[in-house]
Amino acid sequence: MNDASNIGLYYDSWDTTFKEPFGAIKYGATICFRLSYEIPHLEKIERIDMEIIHENERFFVNLSKNHDFFYTYQTFEKPGIYFYKFVVYYEGKRYYLAPDYFNEGGKALIFEKEDVQSYQLTVHSDIEKVPNYYSEGVIYQIFVDRFYNSNSNGMPLCYRKNSFMYANWQDSPFYIKDSNGGIERWDFFGGNLRGIISKLDYLEELGVTCIYLNPIFEARSSHKYDTANYMKIDPLYGDEEDLKELIDISAKKEISIILDGVFSHTGSDSIYFNKYATYDTLGAYQSKDSPYYSWYKFTNYPHDYESWWGIGDLPNVNEMEPSYLEFITGENGVIAKWMKLGIKGFRLDVADELPEKFIRAIRHRIKKIDPQGVLLGEVWEDATNKIAYGERRAYLLGDSLDSVTAYPYRRVLINFLNQEITSSQFYNACMTFRENYPEEYYKSALKLIGSHDVKRIMTELGSVEKVKMAATLQLLFLGAVHIYYGDEVGLEGGSDPENRSTYPWENYCHLGICYDLRDNNPRNKKELLEHYKKLLKIRKEEDTIRKGSVEYIKISNDIIGYKRMLDEQEIMVIVNRADNEEVFTLEVTGEVYQSLFTFEEYHHIGEKIEIVIKGKDSLVIKKII
Amino acid sequence: MNDASNIGLYYDSWDTTFKEPFGAIKYGATICFRLSYEIPHLEKIERIDMEIIHENERFFVNLSKNHDFFYTYQTFEKPGIYFYKFVVYYEGKRYYLAPDYFNEGGKALIFEKEDVQSYQLTVHSDIEKVPNYYSEGVIYQIFVDRFYNSNSNGMPLCYRKNSFMYANWQDSPFYIKDSNGGIERWDFFGGNLRGIISKLDYLEELGVTCIYLNPIFEARSSHKYDTANYMKIDPLYGDEEDLKELIDISAKKEISIILDGVFSHTGSDSIYFNKYATYDTLGAYQSKDSPYYSWYKFTNYPHDYESWWGIGDLPNVNEMEPSYLEFITGENGVIAKWMKLGIKGFRLDVADELPEKFIRAIRHRIKKIDPQGVLLGEVWEDATNKIAYGERRAYLLGDSLDSVTAYPYRRVLINFLNQEITSSQFYNACMTFRENYPEEYYKSALKLIGSHDVKRIMTELGSVEKVKMAATLQLLFLGAVHIYYGDEVGLEGGSDPENRSTYPWENYCHLGICYDLRDNNPRNKKELLEHYKKLLKIRKEEDTIRKGSVEYIKISNDIIGYKRMLDEQEIMVIVNRADNEEVFTLEVTGEVYQSLFTFEEYHHIGEKIEIVIKGKDSLVIKKII
Repeated sequence: MNDASNIGLYYDSWDTTFKEPFGAIKYGATICFRLSYEIPHLEKIERIDMEIIHENERFFVNLSKNHDFFYTYQTFEKPGIYFYKFVVYYEGKRYYLAPDYFNEGGKALIFEKEDVQSYQLTVHSDIEKVPNYYSEGVIYQIFVDRFYNSNSNGMPLCYRKNSFMYANWQDSPFYIKDSNGGIERWDFFGGNLRGIISKLDYLEELGVTCIYLNPIFEARSSHKYDTANYMKIDPLYGDEEDLKELIDISAKKEISIILDGVFSHTGSDSIYFNKYATYDTLGAYQSKDSPYYSWYKFTNYPHDYESWWGIGDLPNVNEMEPSYLEFITGENGVIAKWMKLGIKGFRLDVADELPEKFIRAIRHRIKKIDPQGVLLGEVWEDATNKIAYGERRAYLLGDSLDSVTAYPYRRVLINFLNQEITSSQFYNACMTFRENYPEEYYKSALKLIGSHDVKRIMTELGSVEKVKMAATLQLLFLGAVHIYYGDEVGLEGGSDPENRSTYPWENYCHLGICYDLRDNNPRNKKELLEHYKKLLKIRKEEDTIRKGSVEYIKISNDIIGYKRMLDEQEIMVIVNRADNEEVFTLEVTGEVYQSLFTFEEYHHIGEKIEIVIKGKDSLVIKKII
Repeated sequence: MNDASNIGLYYDSWDTTFKEPFGAIKYGATICFRLSYEIPHLEKIERIDMEIIHENERFFVNLSKNHDFFYTYQTFEKPGIYFYKFVVYYEGKRYYLAPDYFNEGGKALIFEKEDVQSYQLTVHSDIEKVPNYYSEGVIYQIFVDRFYNSNSNGMPLCYRKNSFMYANWQDSPFYIKDSNGGIERWDFFGGNLRGIISKLDYLEELGVTCIYLNPIFEARSSHKYDTANYMKIDPLYGDEEDLKELIDISAKKEISIILDGVFSHTGSDSIYFNKYATYDTLGAYQSKDSPYYSWYKFTNYPHDYESWWGIGDLPNVNEMEPSYLEFITGENGVIAKWMKLGIKGFRLDVADELPEKFIRAIRHRIKKIDPQGVLLGEVWEDATNKIAYGERRAYLLGDSLDSVTAYPYRRVLINFLNQEITSSQFYNACMTFRENYPEEYYKSALKLIGSHDVKRIMTELGSVEKVKMAATLQLLFLGAVHIYYGDEVGLEGGSDPENRSTYPWENYCHLGICYDLRDNNPRNKKELLEHYKKLLKIRKEEDTIRKGSVEYIKISNDIIGYKRMLDEQEIMVIVNRADNEEVFTLEVTGEVYQSLFTFEEYHHIGEKIEIVIKGKDSLVIKKII
């Protein structure tokens, strides 16, 4: 592969000279695609076609030529994901013009083989605006058992027989497994809803606007992804009154609550499946006469059934089975019940495994009860072009999810800070994300650097200064941003269960023993929390940060950032991953700029300001005049 | 093999016609051995020799003949275990007269091969009297973590990092193991010394006279056989003041305390070995300059070392290494420290693995501080003839252990009640025990039917009525008797860790939650506790039970028992393992007898009383006139 300039052609999907408008479009919109050419090559170019693939269709458009470009105008009537490349007939040979997004961005390269990556064009339906409180919000995720135990003088609730409590709040999470890898006994720290209530002041002060709770419905495990009863709060966590109180007190602080909806499977130990006859109901496992029998996918009744990733504790459901669909999405269903109580929406667990119609039914129920409700989907890849179970998913084309977890963003951010990719590769990845996502969803996508399913950011990066850089880049970005509880104080931990350790409160009591846990942490963790607070204060005060446009800045292989702009406002966010201090100049439109961290002023000299950035540091510089 | 009467000879070591005196003798004593003969066989009997084996010596004694017997008088000057059989030359062939204790008791059988079981003769040294409070006592064993938690409103103490608490007091004990079978995390219920203090009234009411505590010195595990510091009470259990208080309050109730001494190995996680650098000391694992280096047996320093049953957590020590010997048995050593605090002695863990000289040194230190101190040894077999590590052990020949755990007694008692052996076999096993043990140790041997190392008696027997029979036979027997905490209320459980579940207190609180655990148990468990109390009340009130001689009664294959006699007193203890009521007569010396359970009276008719015993029941009948 070579640069297309080898045959005298130029195309770059990220440059409106070549593709206009930029990025995703709404159905019915017309796009102009242009390839510029060099005169000396012109006579050798016999013909240029644009190949467009949509679902299982492929068609070719012959490009016209004017005195600057080969070009075509194309109108896309049908929402969906389109892939295109250019086929060039040059001196009797056929070449393909296509991108290598990660290494070269939107720029066209030339390939001799047909089987290459294509350009993506996202054509979306009507997109409802995602409510601002969410799409400009700070979403704080809480793994309930590990956050705060309101029974801190040692009073847990009714633990099931043969449960283990961690003897110390600072113990390391641990799975007690049998020789087959199954969980033999469940492990608890005792965090609960009233614990969260008692920490709302902390969250408010931090700047949180929305709390996403990992599952809270009754379930045997400590993670509660094995739902036992969708209509009941797990007794260890509290009850409906506690949730209502959490919702109400949060609302006064302008914090909304969203819950985790785990609908692709239930627990085997549930009122529906009831494998162990724990409950009084007639479960699907117990009898084919069970009202829940049709929900499940038995291959050899009752012992063999489909389950999530083959884990027998998590039998899969037929989401579109009418009684299940009604149970979850109906007027008196699960979604309705909790929305009516006052939650603002759901995070859909394993969205990829849910039929789109099922997701849509959930969405409709949410919006019917509260037009300001939101639906966040757990998606691990670029959510615009995800193929799951052989099907292209239309999460972000409209009338589906309001937001998806932006895990790819996390990955490249970590890779950049760990010097595993170049600044160009980082820039390219971010731009690809921006190109593919409809504007509204680019904003609402949940920018995260941690969760209960990935290593802690402190562990990924290994130092407080690097986490500070990550947080700066993340939290001052456009749209919805996310904090996994404890990342703000530098909690460490590898993969599950290590990433689910307890929040290290100052002056904390567990089973009647009181600690000052923060005392045992290096002083720099407090520094990290201060940094988080500072960032979220900036975010709160600056409309530009919450709503402004984004333009990437690439200074060097180590120094990158972005400019946020709103009307005449301008804020620049810059990090330096290198160890050493660097000096550079930046073209500006204003006269005086100020650091929002140090309040140092920068005065322009001939439309430029000179900036000194320390090694492993970040700067936030705002135009003041 | 056949009865020796086939060649016209009779011998029975349990009958003083043939061997006088019965049983074990003191060194220097003379025994008369006699074989009676039938005249018709006499001319065929060419010669009879007695073969005696002692240690590695074998010698033969030719028997003389008088008009009733072949006989010899033998004086045994040297303490030890002697084995003998008779070699008969009969019609030109050689026969061996020897026993099959288990099936035929002390009666001689005739064998053609030489390689047969021999008769045992125990010749002991001077034996000091074992203090009465012990040798007539009721020893109650407590596995501390599982008995009672004085912090019952949910206040445990300082658990080590990564410890688990059982969330419920009634949870089933469980080892959290890694894939190699090692313990990954330790599990605790929270029982402690102050918990025992608060239950002393219960123990006093029950009739306990001595408490034996499973290990209480600092150690990582929940069983604490992996000692970390011999000089310190485990902080989870309390401190020296708590132990002192336990000793003092117990003393007021005439209850003495003995501790578990685990001296064949330490924990690897100890101040001595310090494998994980948990402690500030310089451990043997850390440096050859460690003051403890010489205690251990490294094969490849530091990673390979000898350990108890190959368990790396339990490195073996060189008991006779001077600094270790001094540390344990010296004037300011471990034994001295705790004896001076007021404990009455030690139970020696794995006595078989300790050199006899080491045991003797421990004994001497105990007795020096308190002549009433006792030394109990954990021995699993007949302790008079045990060969451990290639050496014949002299536990019960004097100046060694005061008492051993009578596990073989437990085994045959269970087997009899479960109908797995005949009443003759049970009788034979008991008589063998009696024949081999010196009188003083026969009394002081700890008659037990449960411990932390065997299945619970309730689980072995499977019903309350059978446990009641077992308890009757056990607790009204001569000498020291033992109760493993919770057996008196019918706790169930198989092998370790199931046999270490928590005592089911009425109105119990754990981690702040209060239960009435007894309510969940079948009513009959209370009946069992009442039975235990009744038996121990009889034991307390009747000198005959505590001190009297024992004579076995064998009524039928299902009905057995024993007669206890002291001066003119007589109490008969009888059980019927069959399902059905039985009627039988018993020869008696008195005129009127009374049941100590029902107070029913039995009047003699011609030196006999008629007794009705229900199926699966026990009777205790006392001569009143």
